[in-house]
Amino acid sequence: MTGVLHRRGLMFVLSSPSGAGKTTMSRRLLVDDPDIVMSVSATTRPPRAGEIEGRDYRFVDDAGFDALIAGNALLEWAKVFGHRYGTPRGPVEDTLHAGKDVLFDIDWQGTQQLQQTDAASDLVRVFILPPTMVELERRLRGRGTDSDTVVAERMRRAATEISHWGEYNYILINDDPDRCLGEIRAILKAERLRRKRQLGLANFVRDMLS
Amino acid sequence: MTGVLHRRGLMFVLSSPSGAGKTTMSRRLLVDDPDIVMSVSATTRPPRAGEIEGRDYRFVDDAGFDALIAGNALLEWAKVFGHRYGTPRGPVEDTLHAGKDVLFDIDWQGTQQLQQTDAASDLVRVFILPPTMVELERRLRGRGTDSDTVVAERMRRAATEISHWGEYNYILINDDPDRCLGEIRAILKAERLRRKRQLGLANFVRDMLS
Repeated sequence: MTGVLHRRGLMFVLSSPSGAGKTTMSRRLLVDDPDIVMSVSATTRPPRAGEIEGRDYRFVDDAGFDALIAGNALLEWAKVFGHRYGTPRGPVEDTLHAGKDVLFDIDWQGTQQLQQTDAASDLVRVFILPPTMVELERRLRGRGTDSDTVVAERMRRAATEISHWGEYNYILINDDPDRCLGEIRAILKAERLRRKRQLGLANFVRDMLS
Repeated sequence: MTGVLHRRGLMFVLSSPSGAGKTTMSRRLLVDDPDIVMSVSATTRPPRAGEIEGRDYRFVDDAGFDALIAGNALLEWAKVFGHRYGTPRGPVEDTLHAGKDVLFDIDWQGTQQLQQTDAASDLVRVFILPPTMVELERRLRGRGTDSDTVVAERMRRAATEISHWGEYNYILINDDPDRCLGEIRAILKAERLRRKRQLGLANFVRDMLS
């Protein structure tokens, strides 16, 4: 029955320090939920091995990024490790308008910026904590892609990211990826059932009682 | 990990018109979730067949109910169909203090009264709608316990109850009891993960970053 009601899409933000499992969670969530789509960030960072244009990022050069900013085509953007990252506005607005949700894999800076837009009431902010910093460093080293210097920098950056936990609606501790994913799914399911997001309810109830 | 954090219990209100499945949902929820307990209302209504003192209600006479009111021992109370119903305060406060949740099977009047207490920030209000009024009447008649007059009165009362849907945080449409129960479980799981309810988080993060 819920399916016949027009729903307002929500902006579902997952933030965490690098290595806490956010990207894996996002991919697993998207695989079996057709009603949420990823916001693909634009970035000036060069592609890493295995990253695909349009799926992982929209890779642009500095001039391209400047043009996006100048055209008001980004909902938010920030500079991280010397590269710029931003959220293209058009795909987000189209998706919300279609009654689907948008998943954002962004950091505290991007989240703060989204919170300051008109879309703040559509925002659901989830922060994923690692169980410990030792475990976080173990996971970062396990990737095998980063030098000691980069790992140390990521650990410093993780501490900063974690210090913003208080700006999120929900806090998860990822000591078990399956449980953590179940928690993310529950939050998404619950938020979709909020009265304010079910736009067809007033008509549904009026018809019911008439 | 979540288990080691001290949690603030929440007051989980399920309201619906009689016949929309609320009582069945409540019982199923309680069976397999040890972290939520039912608030057993006090009432001056006589027991129905199968109802058990202390499980379904605390049955009291008019003088007993007067004494509860006089002793400020009720969080809320209301008169329905000529009988009084109220929520004993002590068991609720003890349960929340122990970090467990309390389930309330109460109507819009009781919900409004809880919303006006100090406990409003602990309140999560869920309303269950029937798919149609025809279906609701079918379910009420299916019980076989009520006369035509009582069914007609319950249908009038159902319309009043439904008219208060806008005072709830979450709205469910019960056209499939299993799905509806899954939605209730998701809401409960999500609400427990709200930052403000995880009292141990500030210490957890401080220890992590120290």
